Amino acid sequence: MIKIAGIDPGLAATGIGIARGTGLKVESYSFGTISTKAANPLPSRLDIIFTRLLDILQDEKPDLLVVEDVFSLAKYPKSGINLGKVTGIILLAGHKTGLPVAEVPVREAKKILTGNGRATKKQLEKTVRHILNQKDPIKPDHASDALAMAIIGLFRFDSIIKEYSSGRKKC
Amino acid sequence: MIKIAGIDPGLAATGIGIARGTGLKVESYSFGTISTKAANPLPSRLDIIFTRLLDILQDEKPDLLVVEDVFSLAKYPKSGINLGKVTGIILLAGHKTGLPVAEVPVREAKKILTGNGRATKKQLEKTVRHILNQKDPIKPDHASDALAMAIIGLFRFDSIIKEYSSGRKKC
Repeated sequence: MIKIAGIDPGLAATGIGIARGTGLKVESYSFGTISTKAANPLPSRLDIIFTRLLDILQDEKPDLLVVEDVFSLAKYPKSGINLGKVTGIILLAGHKTGLPVAEVPVREAKKILTGNGRATKKQLEKTVRHILNQKDPIKPDHASDALAMAIIGLFRFDSIIKEYSSGRKKC
Repeated sequence: MIKIAGIDPGLAATGIGIARGTGLKVESYSFGTISTKAANPLPSRLDIIFTRLLDILQDEKPDLLVVEDVFSLAKYPKSGINLGKVTGIILLAGHKTGLPVAEVPVREAKKILTGNGRATKKQLEKTVRHILNQKDPIKPDHASDALAMAIIGLFRFDSIIKEYSSGRKKC
C-alpha cells in the first residue's frame, strides 16, 4: 500500500488530499483545506500553512508529496506571485519532512485523469469523484484538485519516483 | 542604533544586506549572497536558502526585515513563479525569527534612493555605494539590491514599522 499527499496551493485556502492504494486502485482517501484570513499579514499566513502542513505530513507520513504546479503566469497576473509564495513554503514543508516532492501541472493531471488537458474544473472534479467512487461532490475545489494530485501520484508513482531520483523532473 | 536586514530574493543567488545606523546615517554595513546550484532539486534549493537565512537572522538579530517585492509579473514571465517561491520561504524565515517583515517594490526603493523609480540597476548601485561611502562597486547585483532594501528600512524605519503594525501594508 502506498500513500500519497496531494496539494493545491492557495493563500486563502490550500487543499490537501490523501490517497492510499496500489497502482490504479484507490483503497481509501481523505481531504481537507488549510484556510488563512486575509486580515492576517502575509508572513503570518504563510507560517500558518507551513506549520499546519508540516504537522499533517509528519502525522500521515506519505510516500510522496505531489504539488500542483502553477504553470501559466498569464492566467494569474495578480495572484501568480502569491501562489508562488505559498508553493515555495509547501515544497519546503515536504523537503523538511524528508519526502520526495514532485510538481505536476494541472494540465497534465487533467490529461491523465480525464483524457483532456483542457478539461474544466467541474469535469476534473467529476472524474476524481468517479475514481473514488464517491457520490457527493467534493468541496471545495481546492480539495478536489488536491485529491487529483494525490491520485496522479498513486497512478504514476513509479515513474514520478524514478524521475525524481534521476533529477530529470525539476523537483 | 537600528539594524536592518534587506533581501533581494533569487533562486540561484539571494542577496543579503545588513545596515546599521540611525535615521539617514548608516554607521556600518555588510553584504553577501546565498547561492544554490541548478543541479539540485527545487525543494532542496529552497531549504538551503531558508536554513541559511534563518541562521543569519538569528545571529544578526535585526530590528526589521525588508524584502524586495516582485511587483510585476510581466517583467518575469518565466522566473516570476520561482521568485515567488523563494520570496515565500524568505517571508517565512523572517516570521519564524519573530521579525517585522515588510515587502518593498524595487521601483519604490529606486524612487526613494535615486529620485527616479525607473533608475537602472547600475544607477541604483551607484547611489547605494555613495550612501555607504564605498569606492568599489558592490557586487553582485543581488547584494547591492539587498543593501538598497536595508537602507530603505533604515531611512523609513518608523513609517514601515507603523504601517506594519497597523496592517496597512500587506506584510
